[in-house]
Amino acid sequence: MAELDRRDLLTGLGGLGLAVAAGACSAAEPARPGRKIGYAIVGLGYYATRIIMPQFANCRSSRLTALVSGDMAKARTFAAQYDVPERSLYTYDTFDRIRDNPDVDVVYVILPNSMHAEYTIRSAQAGKHVVTEKPMSVSVSEAEAMVAACRKAGRKLAVGYRSHFQPHNILAMKLSRDGSIGTRRYVHAEHGFVQGDPTKWRLKKALAGGGSLMDMGVYSVQAMRYLTGEEPAAITARSSTDRKDPRFAEVEDMISWTFEFPSGVIGHGMSSYSSNHNHVRLTGDKGRIDLEPATPYEGQALRIARGGKEERLDPPPGPAVNQFVGQLDHMAECILNDRPPLISGEMGLQDMRIVDAIYRSAAGGGTIRL
Amino acid sequence: MAELDRRDLLTGLGGLGLAVAAGACSAAEPARPGRKIGYAIVGLGYYATRIIMPQFANCRSSRLTALVSGDMAKARTFAAQYDVPERSLYTYDTFDRIRDNPDVDVVYVILPNSMHAEYTIRSAQAGKHVVTEKPMSVSVSEAEAMVAACRKAGRKLAVGYRSHFQPHNILAMKLSRDGSIGTRRYVHAEHGFVQGDPTKWRLKKALAGGGSLMDMGVYSVQAMRYLTGEEPAAITARSSTDRKDPRFAEVEDMISWTFEFPSGVIGHGMSSYSSNHNHVRLTGDKGRIDLEPATPYEGQALRIARGGKEERLDPPPGPAVNQFVGQLDHMAECILNDRPPLISGEMGLQDMRIVDAIYRSAAGGGTIRL
Repeated sequence: MAELDRRDLLTGLGGLGLAVAAGACSAAEPARPGRKIGYAIVGLGYYATRIIMPQFANCRSSRLTALVSGDMAKARTFAAQYDVPERSLYTYDTFDRIRDNPDVDVVYVILPNSMHAEYTIRSAQAGKHVVTEKPMSVSVSEAEAMVAACRKAGRKLAVGYRSHFQPHNILAMKLSRDGSIGTRRYVHAEHGFVQGDPTKWRLKKALAGGGSLMDMGVYSVQAMRYLTGEEPAAITARSSTDRKDPRFAEVEDMISWTFEFPSGVIGHGMSSYSSNHNHVRLTGDKGRIDLEPATPYEGQALRIARGGKEERLDPPPGPAVNQFVGQLDHMAECILNDRPPLISGEMGLQDMRIVDAIYRSAAGGGTIRL
Repeated sequence: MAELDRRDLLTGLGGLGLAVAAGACSAAEPARPGRKIGYAIVGLGYYATRIIMPQFANCRSSRLTALVSGDMAKARTFAAQYDVPERSLYTYDTFDRIRDNPDVDVVYVILPNSMHAEYTIRSAQAGKHVVTEKPMSVSVSEAEAMVAACRKAGRKLAVGYRSHFQPHNILAMKLSRDGSIGTRRYVHAEHGFVQGDPTKWRLKKALAGGGSLMDMGVYSVQAMRYLTGEEPAAITARSSTDRKDPRFAEVEDMISWTFEFPSGVIGHGMSSYSSNHNHVRLTGDKGRIDLEPATPYEGQALRIARGGKEERLDPPPGPAVNQFVGQLDHMAECILNDRPPLISGEMGLQDMRIVDAIYRSAAGGGTIRL
């Protein structure tokens, strides 16, 4: 990671263009000795308990200090495993008392999408910083209220876009920016998997806010933003859902969109709940970058094609942090050093504006200009 | 190649769905002994002289018997090379005399796009069958006139879509149809290259009829049709061209479109004159097929991913005909046996209707229903 990137980061120049430096944050900025930021995890589902919580053991600047769940027996089981004291266990009813817990600096909201706004706002009102999982909310107005609540409380807000801390994605952003593939022209992003059980909360409109777009589509949207370094100026979308399929009675299956970026780059994106996809390709006038798979929990692969040759690229050797540790420690170090998080509430709000435009366009709204 | 496919072909069941069988035609149907179909080549540019004409040596049922050019010195040079007699050389002015040449059964039009209609119609009026290069014409009305002229003259009309005779593409069509990747959901096709010299005829609107769509985009359109086996019911398109770039003063650079197919499949296609692309991917609910490169003169590669594994597939051993020989001999054998060509004028006309819809949509026409 170049010195310039680190310095940009340390001086607090946040925003999309600098996300490439995010992975280096935890490496570049030593935590204050003896001080680790305390995280409360809200929601003890699969992603929280299987993916995120085991990572605190690998963090330099973050520790798990509180749990919030509707199921106290479950909470106590995990509390024993992670040495969380009984006084730091909360139900959704008692959650607001977290205000009085000095061991909690930041609340990480890992609930169904429809609950992100409520718990973000309650956390900010309790004086805590917040990380919320993606998508940030189920509407633009909720996302605006979340940003406003955190601003009013003087607390930091970040969104759990882990790919910004994933080494192959970070390297792809760098290759896009440094001219390795020339002038960018076209980006394509596809994400999806085959949904099975129709009773899952992700297939309920009231909980998920939408279908594949709300789940996998935001990865495509994000990748198109962070690989181009641009924001779409116009959005045109179409969708395809078999409403007789019991999985898709409430939410969309497949949705696709075209982004027109100010530079002239065109992007095609899609998400699906009826087919497997995890691929991002950015093509410039001198070559192309492929991430496939682009955004799994592990196993990313990056290829670059230019000058008639294609090769696999691996990120340069560096601090051995994975995307989950990178995300947790980045927020912790932003709090410790009073820096704005790179993956800010404003970035999540912009995603929600894009998601909203995709839905409106697909519903017959034509081309939506942002 | 399965017996059924051959039989379907031999009984004359033409059309898109059967294009998979086309490569087998020349193998399956022996030419009548001693009779090869005579081709006249109109236009002695790169594709005619470097790619097509050398292939007659490898054909079973086709021979080169006449040349048409505005440059008689050039025509005589190639005539000497291919043993074409002086009496079978024509200028554009003397072309109609080809009617009296019994050595010419079929005229292959390899001229700039804007001249396809005129030479197709003049050939039919001269009593000759016709193959025209893609795109068939520069407008829907021209394509309609070409189909009508050949029908009126009782002559066969085919379009030079060589990929229908290319073994990897044929195998991909078969895998799409036989359920190897489950129910089809999404198709993506991208074709393009970086244009250099702004004076090329392909960059002149009057000769080319359009930009990248007319040249490379038709490969994307065709692949989306022959891999899905469906026709788009709705088309939504956008384009991006820097009109200050001297290459793109008259024609579009990049253009992109979304196809909605009756089955619910969504397709994203694009073409570009400012970046390199040659990739087609079809994804179903059980896997995906990749052709990359999909449509070069040689070097195609096919991969299939399913059940968590990806593998490269090579077409089964069979008659060693390449796509050019396959196309030439297929038309010859259709003439010898009085069968309709698989890659018919009607198929080319449908492409022109699609191309026209893409241009109208990209020009602000919203979603065009076909």
